Amino acid sequence: MFYLKTEASFDAAHFLEGYDGKCRNIHGHRWRVTAQIRGEKLNEGRQTRGMLVDFGDLREILEIFCRELDHCLIYETGSLKPATLQAFREENFRVCEVDFRPTAENFAFYFYQKLKEEGLDVHRVEVYETPNNCAAYEED
Amino acid sequence: MFYLKTEASFDAAHFLEGYDGKCRNIHGHRWRVTAQIRGEKLNEGRQTRGMLVDFGDLREILEIFCRELDHCLIYETGSLKPATLQAFREENFRVCEVDFRPTAENFAFYFYQKLKEEGLDVHRVEVYETPNNCAAYEED
Amino acid sequence: MFYLKTEASFDAAHFLEGYDGKCRNIHGHRWRVTAQIRGEKLNEGRQTRGMLVDFGDLREILEIFCRELDHCLIYETGSLKPATLQAFREENFRVCEVDFRPTAENFAFYFYQKLKEEGLDVHRVEVYETPNNCAAYEED
Amino acid sequence: MFYLKTEASFDAAHFLEGYDGKCRNIHGHRWRVTAQIRGEKLNEGRQTRGMLVDFGDLREILEIFCRELDHCLIYETGSLKPATLQAFREENFRVCEVDFRPTAENFAFYFYQKLKEEGLDVHRVEVYETPNNCAAYEED
Amino acid sequence: MFYLKTEASFDAAHFLEGYDGKCRNIHGHRWRVTAQIRGEKLNEGRQTRGMLVDFGDLREILEIFCRELDHCLIYETGSLKPATLQAFREENFRVCEVDFRPTAENFAFYFYQKLKEEGLDVHRVEVYETPNNCAAYEED
Amino acid sequence: MFYLKTEASFDAAHFLEGYDGKCRNIHGHRWRVTAQIRGEKLNEGRQTRGMLVDFGDLREILEIFCRELDHCLIYETGSLKPATLQAFREENFRVCEVDFRPTAENFAFYFYQKLKEEGLDVHRVEVYETPNNCAAYEED
Repeated sequence: MFYLKTEASFDAAHFLEGYDGKCRNIHGHRWRVTAQIRGEKLNEGRQTRGMLVDFGDLREILEIFCRELDHCLIYETGSLKPATLQAFREENFRVCEVDFRPTAENFAFYFYQKLKEEGLDVHRVEVYETPNNCAAYEED
Repeated sequence: MFYLKTEASFDAAHFLEGYDGKCRNIHGHRWRVTAQIRGEKLNEGRQTRGMLVDFGDLREILEIFCRELDHCLIYETGSLKPATLQAFREENFRVCEVDFRPTAENFAFYFYQKLKEEGLDVHRVEVYETPNNCAAYEED
Repeated sequence: MFYLKTEASFDAAHFLEGYDGKCRNIHGHRWRVTAQIRGEKLNEGRQTRGMLVDFGDLREILEIFCRELDHCLIYETGSLKPATLQAFREENFRVCEVDFRPTAENFAFYFYQKLKEEGLDVHRVEVYETPNNCAAYEED
Repeated sequence: MFYLKTEASFDAAHFLEGYDGKCRNIHGHRWRVTAQIRGEKLNEGRQTRGMLVDFGDLREILEIFCRELDHCLIYETGSLKPATLQAFREENFRVCEVDFRPTAENFAFYFYQKLKEEGLDVHRVEVYETPNNCAAYEED
Repeated sequence: MFYLKTEASFDAAHFLEGYDGKCRNIHGHRWRVTAQIRGEKLNEGRQTRGMLVDFGDLREILEIFCRELDHCLIYETGSLKPATLQAFREENFRVCEVDFRPTAENFAFYFYQKLKEEGLDVHRVEVYETPNNCAAYEED
Repeated sequence: MFYLKTEASFDAAHFLEGYDGKCRNIHGHRWRVTAQIRGEKLNEGRQTRGMLVDFGDLREILEIFCRELDHCLIYETGSLKPATLQAFREENFRVCEVDFRPTAENFAFYFYQKLKEEGLDVHRVEVYETPNNCAAYEED
């Protein structure tokens, strides 16, 4: 089995609603995301002969998904009061609403699904919240 | 001349008020801070003989300063509307007000001053906003 | 399947009794240990909703085990003469006796067992003896 | 199951014949290769007791294979015109002909086979073409 | 004094004409380039208040210069026979001619000059030919 | 001014006699040493034209010095009791006696002197005791 792995990153703020500890505050990380796809055979066409997927293509897809979350505050639906959301609008802050608690585990699942929807045979997605703390998701 | 360098980091959110670009939104980084002190001679006492300063002591000082900014939203005085600050209070978010625009350059100066006030002969402070973007401050 | 990976390290001395080569001498390394646990489902409780285990908790457990071996000489039972052990006592050196040859492979197994005994669903433990030399242990 | 992982690297030039893009030109990389072997049980002999394989031995094998490709231009059979090969001979450039398109995927397979032929129970070979782009090969 | 440091990289082939050793062959590296500028005072304007230069701008300039050398064979004027250059043209290989021997030292000087010509107060340029081998150039 | 920087490392045990803390025990580190030399002008000869010094030569010198301290226990003259030294002899452990307290600061000075004695125009030597703790020595 062949595997291809690439990575991208985004710098975003988040917080964990209902958490008793420092993660309950708005804070931020550089999130490093690695995506690994797999395949039994390499391509035979002229352009991508000997490749599983073109590195450039895989990376571009991953970077597009990371860019959507880059340089914003990510928050879970329902985790902020209406007045806070209104305050953000008046400050003209771009915020990203997600329908899951923004933990590293959930981000790993999120990117896995996004890549799978692109038709890729995804093997594993890793999300590093800090250089030493990493969550991953795999299927099958 | 001898030098001693150590590092610490913090995960925080910030934004640049008045900036036309993605940095104007609340976002976050892992900020990596390196501190470098210097001295002509090494100590002679029993405990720290052959040292400039005990690594453990230098690191602890730097970590204390980093911890003050860790896991919070850092904002410059006057850069948020009263309603936004009120919204943060009602969400019970811990925020850190600083009297400078929270750029990497200003953080480098900030940590330099803090370390100097501790009586250290600081040579250089570097602040990495991302793995590739670093600001530094030196005096003399 | 979800995975959570964290790491800790310790700076210790060791030697390989009966080895014909430079590893037979007392020398030292920075040992970097990564622990990876797994789980089918994420938690649903208030505090750790969307997590497999709290990163902080996993890291603390791993750090406790690393700290036990940090800043000491690790030696296998029976690999030092009584006079040497006596000499260490008279120097007041803290030494750690283990019942296995202190290779990276055996340390990987050692940490795997320790984490399993804590009730964690351990997937893999890696022990880096040097930045490029790594041993790992997995079960099933 | 125990695993042992080491790495080596080589600095070489290559190009992808028939590729429409920048990789079609002669360019170069630092190729980082990691090899991972596995085994159910550790050795019991005096020299390598508690080891899967001696790190030094595994690394030496991998380094020999990397050295063969180091500091040369790697090209696929048939991808250069006779006049170009003739020009290289007249410049006294050392070139390495391989019977596959020199992609990271094919190099992963190449090193996997070479290590297997040495009698090693190879689990996985990874080839980093750049720090973020990695291809891997595994069997069964 | 404030400093700002960023980095970019390029993957290119080169060779050292007249060198007796492996560097005389066409081979390649990932060249990592760091640029460090300096300034006594930070900006005061609305957009870049508290900055020396916008990280994004500094990085873009450096990346443009790196891109010019990326994915090609770099050779010194006069170091290739006419028949070799002709062979490259017939293969449609993009090559980059430079008027200096392409050593890390000369590349450091080259990027320093290019950045200075952009009006930047350049402090130091470092060029990593490999992760451990770095040349730098400074003026004053 | 041109600079050339390379690095080497060694895995050794040490302890700090008279230190009240964990460093008083025999423990170990991977010591990473970087050496930086400087020169106003690059060479003009055929072999090293455009170089300050050949990377390979600089690295070999540094590696020789590191190898002398690799895989042994480093101790300061007078810091071990005669019975302990006798015990080491009977265990056939190779130990390295140095005439300074083996702190990172003193090692930086030690390597600086060794490189200077080789006739190199040394600018700075850094010794990383751990990935984050570094001592350096410069002259002028």
